[in-house]
Amino acid sequence: MAPPESESNVAETLSIEDLREAWNLLVHEDRLESFHALPRHEAEDLYLELPARDQAELVLSLPSQERRSWVRLSPPDDVADLIQEVDSKHREELLQLLDEPTRKDVHALLAYAEDDAGGLMNPRYTRVRPEMTADEALTYLRRQASEQTASRPYAYVLDPDQKLRGVISYRELFLMSPTEQVVNRMRTDLVTAPESMDQEELSRLFAANRLIAIPVLDSEGHMKGIVTLDDIVDVVREEATEDIQKIGGTAAFDQPYLRLTVKEMIQKRAPWLAVLFLGESMTAATMGYFEQEIARAVVLALFVPLVISSGGNSGGQATTLVIRAMSLGEVRLRDWWRVMRREVISGLGLGAILAVIGIARILLWEAIFHTYGAHHMRIAMTVAVSLVGVVLWGTLVGSMLPFILRRLKLDPATASAPFVATLVDVTGLIIYFTAARVILGGVLL
Amino acid sequence: MAPPESESNVAETLSIEDLREAWNLLVHEDRLESFHALPRHEAEDLYLELPARDQAELVLSLPSQERRSWVRLSPPDDVADLIQEVDSKHREELLQLLDEPTRKDVHALLAYAEDDAGGLMNPRYTRVRPEMTADEALTYLRRQASEQTASRPYAYVLDPDQKLRGVISYRELFLMSPTEQVVNRMRTDLVTAPESMDQEELSRLFAANRLIAIPVLDSEGHMKGIVTLDDIVDVVREEATEDIQKIGGTAAFDQPYLRLTVKEMIQKRAPWLAVLFLGESMTAATMGYFEQEIARAVVLALFVPLVISSGGNSGGQATTLVIRAMSLGEVRLRDWWRVMRREVISGLGLGAILAVIGIARILLWEAIFHTYGAHHMRIAMTVAVSLVGVVLWGTLVGSMLPFILRRLKLDPATASAPFVATLVDVTGLIIYFTAARVILGGVLL
Repeated sequence: MAPPESESNVAETLSIEDLREAWNLLVHEDRLESFHALPRHEAEDLYLELPARDQAELVLSLPSQERRSWVRLSPPDDVADLIQEVDSKHREELLQLLDEPTRKDVHALLAYAEDDAGGLMNPRYTRVRPEMTADEALTYLRRQASEQTASRPYAYVLDPDQKLRGVISYRELFLMSPTEQVVNRMRTDLVTAPESMDQEELSRLFAANRLIAIPVLDSEGHMKGIVTLDDIVDVVREEATEDIQKIGGTAAFDQPYLRLTVKEMIQKRAPWLAVLFLGESMTAATMGYFEQEIARAVVLALFVPLVISSGGNSGGQATTLVIRAMSLGEVRLRDWWRVMRREVISGLGLGAILAVIGIARILLWEAIFHTYGAHHMRIAMTVAVSLVGVVLWGTLVGSMLPFILRRLKLDPATASAPFVATLVDVTGLIIYFTAARVILGGVLL
Repeated sequence: MAPPESESNVAETLSIEDLREAWNLLVHEDRLESFHALPRHEAEDLYLELPARDQAELVLSLPSQERRSWVRLSPPDDVADLIQEVDSKHREELLQLLDEPTRKDVHALLAYAEDDAGGLMNPRYTRVRPEMTADEALTYLRRQASEQTASRPYAYVLDPDQKLRGVISYRELFLMSPTEQVVNRMRTDLVTAPESMDQEELSRLFAANRLIAIPVLDSEGHMKGIVTLDDIVDVVREEATEDIQKIGGTAAFDQPYLRLTVKEMIQKRAPWLAVLFLGESMTAATMGYFEQEIARAVVLALFVPLVISSGGNSGGQATTLVIRAMSLGEVRLRDWWRVMRREVISGLGLGAILAVIGIARILLWEAIFHTYGAHHMRIAMTVAVSLVGVVLWGTLVGSMLPFILRRLKLDPATASAPFVATLVDVTGLIIYFTAARVILGGVLL
């Protein structure tokens, strides 16, 4: 591997392209320094691409009188995100830097939860009236044109009371006869979202309909803004990251890995590790309950990690698959019964496969090393029976726990693989030692 | 929870909206039946939204003479995807159904790997010449207009030899003076992708630049097509799903959970479980090596699951975080040293926290139940020292393994949480029993 790199003195040597690439890897001071070293227009390009948290950090690093032009660079939805990132004492100050109509828009947006359709939407979009002719609509749109709406291919057709009637593309407007009315050519089979729609659901709506923008309506059907596909890409990525981190048994990080301090990282990871540890310490009590069996047949202890980890691994597979299928909308709450049936059969099948491998492993070792003594056949049977039971149980717990959590309105991804493994370990021990009592009772025990 | 639903007789009662929602949940026969029951235009809407695999299935379910109009519905990039889904004997047959120019496009696309920029791109886009006036460009675009390019806001400005010179939006074209030349208003600071760019890298390019389409160029700078943001949303989702499934310790599924047969599911899950089982069976050999210690002090066996699972859990956290950070481009190969430093400190911190909880747990149990005998202080110390060692080791293995895999040009996500746990379990046992020999030697052992 390459030798470790020095982290200082990056500012002088970075072009804007490098900086864009390197942004997440730079430490705080280097980022500010590199940023301020850029020519103004390049700095603006970079600024517009940064996440709200970084924008806020940059703006606050500037002297008060220089902040205005930066805050005013972004459209209202992005400004609202930025303002949500600063502490309350700077919030009012930044709001005062906005022009009047934008401040109004931003105030309205701040009332929405950050990850609702209302919080994601941009309140600026181009609108026309149904009775306008193509020619009138184009003239009208020319007046509305702004940098922010330049890349949007559609205009929204609204009634005088702001109710959404249809949508028409610029292309259509200039392809149709100049005197024809918009109402004749607009599309009316619209996909819309209510303000309160959760961002995960919204991203599924985009996926199902392959759209590049969805209008957001309030409960009376008034159009409030549009959510665009580029916001949804971020949502998809964020939600996946959150799921992955939770499945990995840690709290979701809201910042890139290298941006967190070690202290913050320990704070995010320690609580779950401690909970898992406390849960797992039940295994010590369970093993204590079977201490006499272990004392009589120490050979039993040898297979404890093997048996219980198989339950954890199969449970981890099941929970991961079900959590992801739920996130993608492939599996819904009411499918729990179909999932359970499938997982019971899978669990039995997977358990049987491991049982066969387990028996082969024990008989092979016995043939070569004579490790397990006269009762090796019964020991192999104990391990095999336990494996089927433990894998079946792991698979069931792993697949059903996400349903139970969702049913309780909790995040299914909390049923992380290590959480399932911990739950399954204690029962795994009970299954194993109970099988041992039955199969080895009167012989070794 | 709701009672299980009957799966039959869905066809009659489903509207197109329901069907769109329910598609993934329907079994094969129901899907075909429901599809054919729809009025033609609704069936077409649904068809266009389906993944290539489902489109292929539907087309092949039709009699030969009905296939043509369906295959011709989609743009070339989607047709190419569809054709990649059918077996070789149907491929030529479907290609023959296309019109001549589309067939040529599709043939060209089939030469690209499915997940390269070349394989994702659409070869149809609207183009103008730099010396055209706005008026000429609009007239020219009117002739090029098609259903497929209707929602794209940009036209690409090409030289006569197909080299990309710039890009201009329709909005700009109709806002500028009709006699002004395109070359004066086009944007020239372009973000482009080479044909061979991998889809993961491409999705980072979209994210970094917040674009809705990126032109794809060959090595000589000729424009070959465009990749649009809606394709990238699918890529982001697919890649995350693949990562999640691998982190969960199973092969990546290429189909929705409920669409796989139980047999296919076992085939995807069993190999990894079996590998993990074989790896984990090393613990039996390791425990065998310490059999005398266990026989002399059975109390040692009680803490085995607790100690080794802590290593697995902390390793699982570390590997999950690093894998995701790598996927997002937050951490690169050359950052391994920074990551290692951070993880050593985190590992020590997390280990210390668990050690304190462990000591408290053992002393508490001893005070209440008098379980662990006269040497409980030394036992607590053994567990505590092992926890620090095991958690540190787990964190190191978990964080470095993704780097090693990437360095070997393998997928870092293969360093799944259960894989790391299995690796760490054997060493965890060695750490634990070695600590026991040192601390309990001459006393209990």
